[in-house]
Amino acid sequence: MTGDPTDETPRFAAGELEAFAAGVLEAVGLPAPDAATVADLMVRSDLLGASGHGIFRLPQYVRRIRAGGINARPRIRTERDAGATALVDGDNAMGHLVLAHAARIAVEKAAAHGIGWVGVHHGNHAGAASVYARMPLEHGQIGLYSAVGSANHLPPWGGIDMLLSTNPIAVAIPAHAEPPIVLDMATTVAAYGKVKTAAQQGRAIPQGWMIDREGRPLTDPTRADDGFLLPIGGYKGYGLALVLGLLAGTLNGAAMGRDVVDFNADDVTVTNTGQFICAIAPEAFGDPDAFARAVDEVARAMRSSARLPGVESIRVPGDGAHAKREAYEADGVPIHRALLETLAVLAQDIGAQPLR
Amino acid sequence: MTGDPTDETPRFAAGELEAFAAGVLEAVGLPAPDAATVADLMVRSDLLGASGHGIFRLPQYVRRIRAGGINARPRIRTERDAGATALVDGDNAMGHLVLAHAARIAVEKAAAHGIGWVGVHHGNHAGAASVYARMPLEHGQIGLYSAVGSANHLPPWGGIDMLLSTNPIAVAIPAHAEPPIVLDMATTVAAYGKVKTAAQQGRAIPQGWMIDREGRPLTDPTRADDGFLLPIGGYKGYGLALVLGLLAGTLNGAAMGRDVVDFNADDVTVTNTGQFICAIAPEAFGDPDAFARAVDEVARAMRSSARLPGVESIRVPGDGAHAKREAYEADGVPIHRALLETLAVLAQDIGAQPLR
Repeated sequence: MTGDPTDETPRFAAGELEAFAAGVLEAVGLPAPDAATVADLMVRSDLLGASGHGIFRLPQYVRRIRAGGINARPRIRTERDAGATALVDGDNAMGHLVLAHAARIAVEKAAAHGIGWVGVHHGNHAGAASVYARMPLEHGQIGLYSAVGSANHLPPWGGIDMLLSTNPIAVAIPAHAEPPIVLDMATTVAAYGKVKTAAQQGRAIPQGWMIDREGRPLTDPTRADDGFLLPIGGYKGYGLALVLGLLAGTLNGAAMGRDVVDFNADDVTVTNTGQFICAIAPEAFGDPDAFARAVDEVARAMRSSARLPGVESIRVPGDGAHAKREAYEADGVPIHRALLETLAVLAQDIGAQPLR
Repeated sequence: MTGDPTDETPRFAAGELEAFAAGVLEAVGLPAPDAATVADLMVRSDLLGASGHGIFRLPQYVRRIRAGGINARPRIRTERDAGATALVDGDNAMGHLVLAHAARIAVEKAAAHGIGWVGVHHGNHAGAASVYARMPLEHGQIGLYSAVGSANHLPPWGGIDMLLSTNPIAVAIPAHAEPPIVLDMATTVAAYGKVKTAAQQGRAIPQGWMIDREGRPLTDPTRADDGFLLPIGGYKGYGLALVLGLLAGTLNGAAMGRDVVDFNADDVTVTNTGQFICAIAPEAFGDPDAFARAVDEVARAMRSSARLPGVESIRVPGDGAHAKREAYEADGVPIHRALLETLAVLAQDIGAQPLR
């Protein structure tokens, strides 16, 4: 979110970031165990390189909690259960808590029935999609996750009304010796955060990311409000964003389309954010070890393909996040100075321990 | 597949096409009920406007059946059952039969457990993805379907080895007064059939559909063998094609990656095609009628968005197929003269009743 780290960018151990975030969240009213859970899950986004979904969001979460837009003392509960599916009422809690609850249920159901699909309503922004899609991996299961994004930046194809978010899809597939294959993608060509970063850094954005209301390419990110993001594959990405929104939002009685609250602009209105998480047990379809080895084979086949001129290596989804997590666990997570200052002000403001 | 119909294009009632296809399939050894089922499902692709997946494929299927590449007298069976999931062994049957079987099981499981996910191996090409995703709609359920495509035309992102197919995803969502929302998309910018159609008609293809092995745009469709399709959203579409292939193929012990047989070039080798179909019961998440009405609302909001200059109307996925089906049911399905001649030769060759 704040650009690529340089050698001078301060770095912090994940545990330091977690302790800081937990202290802040506790100071604004979250029970200590909940604060620790949220802090852990926030920092997982940072560790995977999804810094726009990690500790960067803490000031915004705090504003919402203080303004009453997020419930610091929720009663998260399973509202419906049909055997292999459940609907979770998040009671307007921090999204991380709701999804951690939902993922646990999905994993249990997959172990019992081959698959578990858990929908969420009355949730909130929960960070990077892959954080949740990865949860079933810890149990040898496949994870699928989608969410209604927390602000609309995408019109229907051919339209100019912002009726859709960049609704992401994440799919995590366990491997044997190779890292798991983890896709985590927005249904737009670029995530909105990348546009904001370019604006901050005074860089133009490439043609193909955005158009304006006349349909002309928009490359000046400071004019982002005059246009909107383009979906991947044109009408295809629009269709994907729409059906994911129906599955993650409408099916669960959560906000979708016109109802979506822009949580960047509004700290008070309850968002009723919807998500789903699905876990699939490979042993329901065959020998799970043979499956994991076959996934290894596929990953290696992709990586060893002959390459286009100028291409140095071929990646499999998740390779980048995997490399970042290894580097950040070893050397610390880079936190840009601007964010560090914001976090210092936040800590002082609420009387929490500062970061270092 | 053979271009847009003109006023002079001969048209046939769906029933006529079905009777013809069933006669042909019976003549090459399918039991009469199986021939009727396959013919019905083939013509459903035509009715939805997916003519490249309909009766156009009949000569190819017949070649494979006669060459022993498809089993005309299969024993399709449920090999594994974990409650809400199943694995179906298609015994190398016509893909349509295997998927019809799998869809029935998925619907039953969704009614009982909220969701049903059925994987297939030892299957074959089964026509348009949306034909199967739509099956749960008849029971008020949501349908999801994906398949490992039956020929590789896509390398990994940055690569030039054809390791992936255009692996499609289809999602069908029931509405109340509006037509259901049905997305059916390849993970490439263009389906390979569109390239073949352009070559047949002597038209160039747009930049962005294909590149050659040097990474240069390829716009001459007669040079298609010198290049490959581009995935939607660059590395994102590659990632989608890959994870869908792992879920539809590898998880089910079906072919994926290097193992995929090009069924356009090879009539003999068993393809071991993999697919999955998933059905979700809306009543597992809330009042299904309220859900269907909410889907109506979302569809109407999309259609009524203000529009870009020059855009006449905004569609929701499935609108085009819905309009085509209504028109074709009223006026008949257009069958291009070239295809008609091919089908006449086929009928004569195997001693089946000709079309008309």
